[in-house]
Amino acid sequence: MPDLLSLLTPSSVAVIGASPDPHSLRGRIMEVMGCHDVDIPIYPISRSHDEVFGLKAYRSVAETPTPVELAILIIPAANIPAALEDCAAAGVKAALILASGFAEDHSEGGEDLQQRVLDIQARTGMLISGPNSEGFANMATRLCATFSPAVEGENMELMPAWSTAGRIAVVAQSGGMGFAFYDRARAKQMRFSHVVTTGNEACLESLDVVEHLITADEADVFLLFMEDVKTPEKLARVAEQALRAGKPMIVTKIGRSEAGIRAAASHTASLAGSYAAYKAIFERYGVIEGLDTEEMVDIAGAFSYYAGRLPAGNRAAIFTGSGGAGGWMADACAAVGIEVPMLDPETRATIDEHLPSYGTSQNPVDGTAGVIRTLGYARISNMLTASESIDAVIAITSARNPATLAREPDALIELGRETRKPVLMWSYTLPHPDVATMLSKAGLPLFTNMRNCTRALAAMTEYRAKRDAFLARPVAAAPEPLPASVIEELDGGSATIAEFDAMRLLAATGIEAVTGTLARTPDEAATAAENAGGPVALKIQSPDISHKSAAGGVALSISGGDAARQAFIDIQARVAKNAPDAVILGTLVQPMARPGLEMILGISNTSGFGPLLMVGFGGTAVETSGDVVFAPAPLSRDDARALLTRLRGAAMLNPASLDMDALLDAMEKLSNLAASASERIAEVDLNPVLVHRPGEGISIVDALIVQHTPD
Amino acid sequence: MPDLLSLLTPSSVAVIGASPDPHSLRGRIMEVMGCHDVDIPIYPISRSHDEVFGLKAYRSVAETPTPVELAILIIPAANIPAALEDCAAAGVKAALILASGFAEDHSEGGEDLQQRVLDIQARTGMLISGPNSEGFANMATRLCATFSPAVEGENMELMPAWSTAGRIAVVAQSGGMGFAFYDRARAKQMRFSHVVTTGNEACLESLDVVEHLITADEADVFLLFMEDVKTPEKLARVAEQALRAGKPMIVTKIGRSEAGIRAAASHTASLAGSYAAYKAIFERYGVIEGLDTEEMVDIAGAFSYYAGRLPAGNRAAIFTGSGGAGGWMADACAAVGIEVPMLDPETRATIDEHLPSYGTSQNPVDGTAGVIRTLGYARISNMLTASESIDAVIAITSARNPATLAREPDALIELGRETRKPVLMWSYTLPHPDVATMLSKAGLPLFTNMRNCTRALAAMTEYRAKRDAFLARPVAAAPEPLPASVIEELDGGSATIAEFDAMRLLAATGIEAVTGTLARTPDEAATAAENAGGPVALKIQSPDISHKSAAGGVALSISGGDAARQAFIDIQARVAKNAPDAVILGTLVQPMARPGLEMILGISNTSGFGPLLMVGFGGTAVETSGDVVFAPAPLSRDDARALLTRLRGAAMLNPASLDMDALLDAMEKLSNLAASASERIAEVDLNPVLVHRPGEGISIVDALIVQHTPD
Repeated sequence: MPDLLSLLTPSSVAVIGASPDPHSLRGRIMEVMGCHDVDIPIYPISRSHDEVFGLKAYRSVAETPTPVELAILIIPAANIPAALEDCAAAGVKAALILASGFAEDHSEGGEDLQQRVLDIQARTGMLISGPNSEGFANMATRLCATFSPAVEGENMELMPAWSTAGRIAVVAQSGGMGFAFYDRARAKQMRFSHVVTTGNEACLESLDVVEHLITADEADVFLLFMEDVKTPEKLARVAEQALRAGKPMIVTKIGRSEAGIRAAASHTASLAGSYAAYKAIFERYGVIEGLDTEEMVDIAGAFSYYAGRLPAGNRAAIFTGSGGAGGWMADACAAVGIEVPMLDPETRATIDEHLPSYGTSQNPVDGTAGVIRTLGYARISNMLTASESIDAVIAITSARNPATLAREPDALIELGRETRKPVLMWSYTLPHPDVATMLSKAGLPLFTNMRNCTRALAAMTEYRAKRDAFLARPVAAAPEPLPASVIEELDGGSATIAEFDAMRLLAATGIEAVTGTLARTPDEAATAAENAGGPVALKIQSPDISHKSAAGGVALSISGGDAARQAFIDIQARVAKNAPDAVILGTLVQPMARPGLEMILGISNTSGFGPLLMVGFGGTAVETSGDVVFAPAPLSRDDARALLTRLRGAAMLNPASLDMDALLDAMEKLSNLAASASERIAEVDLNPVLVHRPGEGISIVDALIVQHTPD
Repeated sequence: MPDLLSLLTPSSVAVIGASPDPHSLRGRIMEVMGCHDVDIPIYPISRSHDEVFGLKAYRSVAETPTPVELAILIIPAANIPAALEDCAAAGVKAALILASGFAEDHSEGGEDLQQRVLDIQARTGMLISGPNSEGFANMATRLCATFSPAVEGENMELMPAWSTAGRIAVVAQSGGMGFAFYDRARAKQMRFSHVVTTGNEACLESLDVVEHLITADEADVFLLFMEDVKTPEKLARVAEQALRAGKPMIVTKIGRSEAGIRAAASHTASLAGSYAAYKAIFERYGVIEGLDTEEMVDIAGAFSYYAGRLPAGNRAAIFTGSGGAGGWMADACAAVGIEVPMLDPETRATIDEHLPSYGTSQNPVDGTAGVIRTLGYARISNMLTASESIDAVIAITSARNPATLAREPDALIELGRETRKPVLMWSYTLPHPDVATMLSKAGLPLFTNMRNCTRALAAMTEYRAKRDAFLARPVAAAPEPLPASVIEELDGGSATIAEFDAMRLLAATGIEAVTGTLARTPDEAATAAENAGGPVALKIQSPDISHKSAAGGVALSISGGDAARQAFIDIQARVAKNAPDAVILGTLVQPMARPGLEMILGISNTSGFGPLLMVGFGGTAVETSGDVVFAPAPLSRDDARALLTRLRGAAMLNPASLDMDALLDAMEKLSNLAASASERIAEVDLNPVLVHRPGEGISIVDALIVQHTPD
């Protein structure tokens, strides 16, 4: 990847296609750029104008008085390739293509044009962003290479001059959404470093931008709007970099509702629809998922103020002058896993000194409006942060009237600077703009939405816990090598390895499977049933029959040799009729599984994100519940345990009534198989897996392994 | 309940304690009232001033030139009883007590004072609101009997003059929260009729206010902030009235996180902690629960515009100029159960006529910014509402710049008036105030929060479905009478009816229970075990032992007479040691239950809200999962089925693998028992209830019935 400094922090800029018409996008970009006082030359490139918005225009990038480092192209798509060639010839380092009419255009020619851009990039090594981009804004250099109205305004301050908060960078494919984050945050005077929109991502991808800003230490918190990831392996890499650097990524991934996810089927590959793969990586690397613009901005704001002082636990103190508001906030905390414990006696005594008889120092602390006015928000916050029983403070205010907080600007600044525990402020009325400024100066995040406040606190808490655990874990060991017999079987096996062979293969890796006996004749079936010493199931084995029951290929609860012989014959007859062309390997005679909770285990390794382990509620339930979760393989025992907690029905997995150790063991081993044989295995589907009572293990009742086929 | 008109729409008002000091609450109320031009006389009552804020003051309510209908009391609590007596003597019809220092005050005397207020109310029949209230605002008469800054402002318009939308009324115990709803909604120029805060609710309760406003047809949509309900039976009654009248109640109930709910125990009564009872009634009567101020206001706004035109189904069309925003909105729709189906070919053809090659008419419709500018929001909305494949339209805009929508104010007004399907607008940038005004005039709800938009649409859809079903159902028949033997057993039984007797009682009502045999000697146990014809469980029966296992009173999977005899002896010995004083009724010998999904069924009838049926995931899981739900008894089969869908683990209840009919049957019969014997039964706890495979029924393994004890 070429150095992104040429794009985001160039020493000179040319705008190819610049126009003096303020109603066209070609004029709008000049107007928007011109609002901000930049320290570098900007050269309009125009065939028809000598001057554009007061700047001398040039005929080509080759004619500018100093060399052009960044060229912005806003000309018809058809003219882009030639213009890029000119840029390359003139030594331009980076090109930003705002023009549309490429791959996003369903008419002929768009795809071709985009391919030509790609070819030029490959040949010249020039950094190319776009096409179909809305450009970027670099708040530190004040370069707004965009026509977005969100950064338009004469002498507009792009970032608050006073702020020392962590710098928030927006990276988005969508221009509208990218700048919308910034638009939302302005009212709260948050500190943004960049808004970078990437459009079609023909060459430069969102994650490249994030990687650059982490490496160059030019941003501290990321707001990402992802439509897709062109190069899947970048996701885990960049997410891990961000986690190590302590620079949180707050992400929304579009496509959670695609049919493959919504109408979840029991087939692993379809359950692993790409969102599930994203989700697996997000969970592993502490990427925070946001659900709307304002929520994401609010979470980013909290991190920007408190990145180095994240809460050590999930216990919050709430203080309020309105009892109703305090109760509501306590409920909202509980809903996201934040505890609101009773305060310790020492802290209560400190507060009680000041409270009238109708206040209360339990938690929420109902300080009453009068006491809050007398003591001030900062002093009460300090009383609470001093308590050993809490990890963060939520202060409730009505900021419609700026007067209350205006009594203590210096105390608030000191609070924001000195506190070791996050203090968050929620206003239940719409805040006066002066309050937003005051709190931005103090470095205290202001929430107008109650749930965003609790969500931000929960996100900070979870991020810290996840990051601490991630940094503390040993460097991931290579997965354990597989027994040679397993490798051989995989290499010798067909693309689809059916039940009986799959069971043997799993057993060879140490996973408990109900292997059974493959019977090829009625007598073999009879013998196998007699040896089983209890009722058995008979199941036809054929690579051509994926739904054995529907083909008449299954008989359950057969007791004794005679019954098994007859069942074998019946199955043969039914299958011969229902699937006359199927290749039959035999009929599997398995002991009937003891009852247990029906779960599903699997491997999905087709998303490009690397092998993922799947676990969920299985049997017939999987089709309706879709309650399955994924994690990157391999998994440690702790990873496996954490993964199970992500199931909606997690509370069903009670170690008092189920052999959870056996399930965790199978998850670990299966994930090791996924990682060790990721070149070979595309998919594994174990369904149902019956989890028995404690000490009684699990039974894998059916299994399917699908291998990658050479391209 | 006295007529609330005297409180909310009086012909004259006295303010007892009025002061000219604008820094005191006594002056603030005069200032706030004085901002608004009211048509009725306002009499300050003061001992120390002859004039207050330009109004002539009087010494007492007896001296005013015309009789006082409403007296507002803002004097020290200790003086309230005497002042109320004066009011009663002067023929005052209603009193609003803003003073605090009553039951909410933990110091001595507060409770007593509140009781004295109650006594005066009972004796005089005067309507009394408060104490500790923040008063009310009646937007139609412009009477703002409050010191809330939310309605302060010279010549402030309390409701938009142009609006014909449904009138929104806020009713809240908390003054801060009550007026906060109004404060939030003002920016969107919604039409509010009242904000009524009720404080301690010594006499007048929130639900009385709602009932009055429904009956008098003075409001159409309700925003309720509930801390508790003083008279529980009012809740179902008023909620039903509201549902019949088609006046939705949007409610938040504080106390969802109380310890009794959070740390769910398996005991029915504690699981039925009051929030569960509220929730049961909310679900039955279509009460919509909101999670924060802005969300509730946004939902109310949508209903106020579309009450008579609620969506007939859950299919939405989305149109957008930003592809990213459209995809995000589609995901947000899916998350709340709103479908975004492909549009029908006819509608697509109509739209395609106008689209450029980079737009798309599937759904979301990416109209592109240019086409939206050319056609306008109203025309595109009309194209979409004409489609048979959708029930509502979400239009996405960037309302930061008012120019786009300002091209078509008349078309928007026509759209708002004529559309038969809801059209909702979401702006992904913060809207210009002119846009809010324009859309309020058009009667089109404007959302700045994406999830509030989808939640409002989902709430409208669900409300219509629930109301239609409610109105269509036959008038509830009286519950079926119980067999005389059951009544006799209940009447003759102890307060706590233990397992064996409870099982027989349930069996008598037609509920399948594993009754077993009560053995009093080792030989009786042996005989019972032999007769069972399979393994049995032995369980001690004693009203004094609630945890049989812990007392050593249980033996499982005992086969044959000899083993049962020994198990009986062992149990006796252990229990004699662990619970030497317990009265022992015998030992129950039960066939071991076949395996099945462990659920819990119960009755809870101690909340004051009437008998509730409980169902959930049981066994040991109930303690950790708390996945239980409640509904008012009796339940029809449809009610029972609907109740199960409210479980988080609902997808586990697959009729292909479980005998759901047997479970539903038991729910119906148990709910009938709850309703028929509600005078007797306080609580029933059946746990676990094993649900077997289809056709194999259920097994109630343990049962407990608790009867009401006379006060």
